[in-house]
Amino acid sequence: MSEGGEGQPVFRRLCLLGIGLIGSSVARAARARGLVGEIVGHARSERTRATALALGLVDRAEADPAAAVIDADCVMLCAPLGAYVPLTTAIAPALAPGAVLTDVGSVKGCVVRDLAPLVPGGVHFVPAHPVAGTEHSGPEAGFAELFEGRWCILTPPAGTDRAAIDRLAALWRGMGSLIEEMSVDHHDRVLAITSHLPHLIAYTIVGTADDLGEDIKQEVIKFSASGFRDFTRIAASDPVMWRDIFLSNKEAALEIMQRFSEDLTALQKAIRRGDGDTLAQLFARTRDIRRRVIEARQA
Amino acid sequence: MSEGGEGQPVFRRLCLLGIGLIGSSVARAARARGLVGEIVGHARSERTRATALALGLVDRAEADPAAAVIDADCVMLCAPLGAYVPLTTAIAPALAPGAVLTDVGSVKGCVVRDLAPLVPGGVHFVPAHPVAGTEHSGPEAGFAELFEGRWCILTPPAGTDRAAIDRLAALWRGMGSLIEEMSVDHHDRVLAITSHLPHLIAYTIVGTADDLGEDIKQEVIKFSASGFRDFTRIAASDPVMWRDIFLSNKEAALEIMQRFSEDLTALQKAIRRGDGDTLAQLFARTRDIRRRVIEARQA
Repeated sequence: MSEGGEGQPVFRRLCLLGIGLIGSSVARAARARGLVGEIVGHARSERTRATALALGLVDRAEADPAAAVIDADCVMLCAPLGAYVPLTTAIAPALAPGAVLTDVGSVKGCVVRDLAPLVPGGVHFVPAHPVAGTEHSGPEAGFAELFEGRWCILTPPAGTDRAAIDRLAALWRGMGSLIEEMSVDHHDRVLAITSHLPHLIAYTIVGTADDLGEDIKQEVIKFSASGFRDFTRIAASDPVMWRDIFLSNKEAALEIMQRFSEDLTALQKAIRRGDGDTLAQLFARTRDIRRRVIEARQA
Repeated sequence: MSEGGEGQPVFRRLCLLGIGLIGSSVARAARARGLVGEIVGHARSERTRATALALGLVDRAEADPAAAVIDADCVMLCAPLGAYVPLTTAIAPALAPGAVLTDVGSVKGCVVRDLAPLVPGGVHFVPAHPVAGTEHSGPEAGFAELFEGRWCILTPPAGTDRAAIDRLAALWRGMGSLIEEMSVDHHDRVLAITSHLPHLIAYTIVGTADDLGEDIKQEVIKFSASGFRDFTRIAASDPVMWRDIFLSNKEAALEIMQRFSEDLTALQKAIRRGDGDTLAQLFARTRDIRRRVIEARQA
């Protein structure tokens, strides 16, 4: 099996365990660019399996995850984090020797801790996190360009086979991603601030608005263009996925929330005291980060 | 003077006091649609005046606000809220009888309270708030389509001349806005949640990130596509404008921040306890507000 040489797919058979926004985008991107020979999908719901087949995302859809992974040289967990342990337990005996087992989860510490002991010898376990997404869910929501110009972070445990890492990197690079390798702890700390805190805050503010009386709520929606609507977009992300992320990255998320709460309290105090200098100073320095985000072409 | 009849401008001479994002967008939109005969601008900075002239935004730029308002039948305050009292004090003696004096500020309570006593008899004071904007500032940042499909809220004090209100509404409608009238108190409560709280939170989270060490900050920028970048956009808004907004809408802003802080604390507790049901429940109900925002065509 060539590792993505001219005209050769990177993997002969890709198995997607879960066919939501990310899984279906992988299917579309990998197929469009000839990165995989064949795609087999597993989804718990019959409706998702039927949709995936109807959209041509997978060549075969299996209700049984163990049946789905047979003879696949790449198996990708694309389900919410809470489903990882039962899925991996179910597929372990059926995994092909030499296969790459990977995932797309937003938290990595718990993935390595919980899954590594379940992975059979001879199977290469390479956790990954494509830093990309939208607020939409389900197999219809995916699109082939989702990963273009976005980072995919690989967090292989020490001692992982280099050829397996490179092959997975070739798949993601082929789908348009930029590749970065880091430790699981570092990944979880960085993502706590760039992703988990923003989502938690967006969910909170939209929840705060939802608790208001219906008359004022209607006006909040009407005049949402003034800032609120950006939060509603983030807060429309998949609820089960995000529940699992917060339960899985508890420590790092709580630590950064604590810092945020302290900073918010300081600002409240400045407003209460009418301390305009402190406000203007903070509001000016945050512009610099925006400039750097734009320069990094992530805007 | 016709009120915007066929081929007739709504105002003969519009005076803009401040030519930033909003002022320059008004100039572009009003000119493009023939809503005003002539535009005179005032800006404190010579550079802004030169830019406004070079871009053709104004027919004349005055360093002295009193000179700018002479013979204008519409005078629009487009400066930060903190400049309203000195500006209005300076222009009051020069305002033409029958002129409409208006503004574009995001807070209305303090505007009516502070300015109403300064407005000479015979001048019609009609506060307004176009609910539109971007994170960019300055005369170059404006564009003619900024107000299209966006709300413009008018908060005329009781007893304001109906013809003056209608004429100002005709100007905003001509620039593409939808018009709503409400009381100043109601406006400030609604905007505290839809606009002031989101901005304050965005400034806080970007500030929290800015306090991190430079090495992790670089990674926050690199991986900002995971949620953080949306906050950086909001937190890049004009610092002086936002300082003034928080100082001017203190009570309503503090009240909604208090509710938000309580909700955030409840979520922190749910994460600490590993209470997945509470998390999934909150994360699911916020989707409904997003759906309503999209239906209201504000997304």
